Amino acid sequence: MKPGRVLIIGAGLAGSLLAVYLARAGWKVELVERRADPRARRLAVGRSINLAISARGLKALRRAGLEDTVLKDAIRMRGRTIHPVAGETHFHPYSSDPTLAINSVSRSALNLTLLDAAAAEPNVTLAFEERCTGVDPTRAEATFVHDPMGTTRTVTADLIVGTDGAYSAARAALQKSERFDYSQDFLGHGYKELTIPPVTVGPYAPFAMEPNALHIWPRGESMMIALPNPDGSFTCTLFWRHDGDGSSFAAIRTAADATTHFQSVYPDAVPMMPTLGEDFERNPVGTMVTVRCNPWVRGCVALLGDAAHAIVPFYGQGANASFEDCESLLDALTHESTIDAALARYQRDRIANANAIADMAKYNFVEMRDLAGRASFQRRKKVEQFLHRMAPERFTPLYDLVSFSTVPYTEAKARGAANVRAVSTAITLFVIAIIVAVMILAVLLARFALGLGAP
Amino acid sequence: MKPGRVLIIGAGLAGSLLAVYLARAGWKVELVERRADPRARRLAVGRSINLAISARGLKALRRAGLEDTVLKDAIRMRGRTIHPVAGETHFHPYSSDPTLAINSVSRSALNLTLLDAAAAEPNVTLAFEERCTGVDPTRAEATFVHDPMGTTRTVTADLIVGTDGAYSAARAALQKSERFDYSQDFLGHGYKELTIPPVTVGPYAPFAMEPNALHIWPRGESMMIALPNPDGSFTCTLFWRHDGDGSSFAAIRTAADATTHFQSVYPDAVPMMPTLGEDFERNPVGTMVTVRCNPWVRGCVALLGDAAHAIVPFYGQGANASFEDCESLLDALTHESTIDAALARYQRDRIANANAIADMAKYNFVEMRDLAGRASFQRRKKVEQFLHRMAPERFTPLYDLVSFSTVPYTEAKARGAANVRAVSTAITLFVIAIIVAVMILAVLLARFALGLGAP
Repeated sequence: MKPGRVLIIGAGLAGSLLAVYLARAGWKVELVERRADPRARRLAVGRSINLAISARGLKALRRAGLEDTVLKDAIRMRGRTIHPVAGETHFHPYSSDPTLAINSVSRSALNLTLLDAAAAEPNVTLAFEERCTGVDPTRAEATFVHDPMGTTRTVTADLIVGTDGAYSAARAALQKSERFDYSQDFLGHGYKELTIPPVTVGPYAPFAMEPNALHIWPRGESMMIALPNPDGSFTCTLFWRHDGDGSSFAAIRTAADATTHFQSVYPDAVPMMPTLGEDFERNPVGTMVTVRCNPWVRGCVALLGDAAHAIVPFYGQGANASFEDCESLLDALTHESTIDAALARYQRDRIANANAIADMAKYNFVEMRDLAGRASFQRRKKVEQFLHRMAPERFTPLYDLVSFSTVPYTEAKARGAANVRAVSTAITLFVIAIIVAVMILAVLLARFALGLGAP
Repeated sequence: MKPGRVLIIGAGLAGSLLAVYLARAGWKVELVERRADPRARRLAVGRSINLAISARGLKALRRAGLEDTVLKDAIRMRGRTIHPVAGETHFHPYSSDPTLAINSVSRSALNLTLLDAAAAEPNVTLAFEERCTGVDPTRAEATFVHDPMGTTRTVTADLIVGTDGAYSAARAALQKSERFDYSQDFLGHGYKELTIPPVTVGPYAPFAMEPNALHIWPRGESMMIALPNPDGSFTCTLFWRHDGDGSSFAAIRTAADATTHFQSVYPDAVPMMPTLGEDFERNPVGTMVTVRCNPWVRGCVALLGDAAHAIVPFYGQGANASFEDCESLLDALTHESTIDAALARYQRDRIANANAIADMAKYNFVEMRDLAGRASFQRRKKVEQFLHRMAPERFTPLYDLVSFSTVPYTEAKARGAANVRAVSTAITLFVIAIIVAVMILAVLLARFALGLGAP
């Protein structure tokens, strides 16, 4: 296919990486963003502060020559540090291979890196503060309002890609077309970001605690997590129910209530959070949504990233999955002879995988907030890692498949389900072996005792 | 609660009945419809031609004093007449009680009856050709464009009810509010309406076939059905896949192809359908969608009917469920002391029931197009009706619960699932009884034979 003109709506993580890919493949790229240019003031785009980049994301960044740049400012997290209400913290590695880690990176820094790379491509034209007001798949055109001036313009292209996030304007246009399956499904939990600032003294200074870990305070129905930043701070995220009693954003609203609650539920964190009360009052409560749709393609319009499949953050795979989308679309446009065929191939490749990681991300919330705090769960994890060491080709734990491999999410999910059965079987066989061993021992002892008592 | 001002958006079946209810309860009702006034030319509102009214719908109509008016022009359907590809048709009653039937009524006539009743209420103000362009739940106001003139106006009310159908503008406004769960899910099948005109001769004239039945041509993946009309005609609806080979709207597009296909797949229908080819080419293909959302209420705005829960048509319960919504909302507004409390009660009462009938309606498509043509299924139906005759208090078939009772849909669905197990148990016990009887007989015969052979 001869590369033509592509309009990318949204210069977030996915849109910026896609712009780099397609520009280098010879496409004339117009990249249009609703927000102001973050490069001007090196501003954060969006709200959430950091994210975890793992194998899939690194592979996609490598393809753009950006892996080293991104990893330079990343902090490796080799496992989870669990903080119980009382008692010592304990560390659980993510993999039986101690060299494997996920990478805590700043979302805004990553976005700037990608935007800088896109802007450096001669084939890329950038526009900011232009809000998409409509996309017409039949005429291959999109309309924008330049918010500061109120002026409007229409952009036509051979290909339009909507990378404009969970509340995508491109998707809203497609949603009105016939037979467009769509769902948006909100978690009953919301999130609030808090902070643990750097320290000057202590075993991990400038970090207040072990930096090479993702910290979790699992509390059953709710949790707090903390991810390290290069400046020695941690970004904490509180995941509480929106409504109800106990740990909920409806029940706890003031600095005083938050501090009291933290002292009883997250006692070891309180001394590390000097601005807890004011942060709690000031920072907004975010919502978390799972968005699914089908098709992802109408005419020459395709959806990509959160616009096609917003997922909850609990597997740290949102950005990684979106970067995989970019690779898939690039490959499809490279290998197919028409845009139609390429887009059909792209959505055939990606929809089932996006649904699989959406399911796994929802499940992982239960694992993090509830199971991670249970001894039975930790035992199962140890059995998994034991099986992996015994038969690395035949048994790979789900976490490794998702975070440290690039096998399709659908395959990871299926193998994860098989793993659960295998672990149960292994535990059953182990218990039977113990029972048999005890019985043999009992028989031997009985024989010995009888032998002693024999005349 | 002192009745106030209510704005009802959409004067379809649900909106018109609700207007009658609320006006008689003392509310000042403004009923606004996007389409032109159907009373002017006694026009059909919307596309589908007839529907089945059963116990739930009749109860709601009775409450408005309209049951007799509606039943006067209805045709009773006592069961299903199955049309195999070859061989005789066979009739299966809907209930073991031969007096029970569902009622084929014209959607447009029913809508006119309800609109006339609403217009006769002094408390009701009607407006047509006004398209809702926005609903603001926080300010309790909605905006409309009067399409012929292009003028706009804003209506404020104490209560706003969106009864504007599967593609509801009221719901679209709520969908943008925070934490609004929503899904739209299209069937892979579409539908096309065809007709069997009245005849002058024949055993059922003016009907071309048995009028007191719902006719089904079950063909596995697809089907045709026919419902009788008072003028002696039948409205046929073809349910085919949109895409693919065989019986699909993508594969068969011309009058000639349709006629050839009908001759092999629906051979007994062809002689009754003189305008088959031209009807097939002229009539549009409709889509079928299941819409679910949660909440149904934001501030003083409530959704009702298809706007809250569009379902597929295969249980004939769309209008019946919407009429139940109207009763529920009337009861809630009558018994609660504030609008907030009433709307909370209404959605608590209805959401789970709407989800239950949505599930059952999807399942019933499989029953109609595939199972209804199978002997094993008919046997199970006979066992169900036998159990119902034996223990009418303890066992009621699902169809009776949905169509001939007003128990909540959730209860009907749960009891239907229990029925499936009970029928399997009954069949197993019956088979065991047969085997035991045969064994006893064999023993007796053996004894007799041995006795004969004994010296």
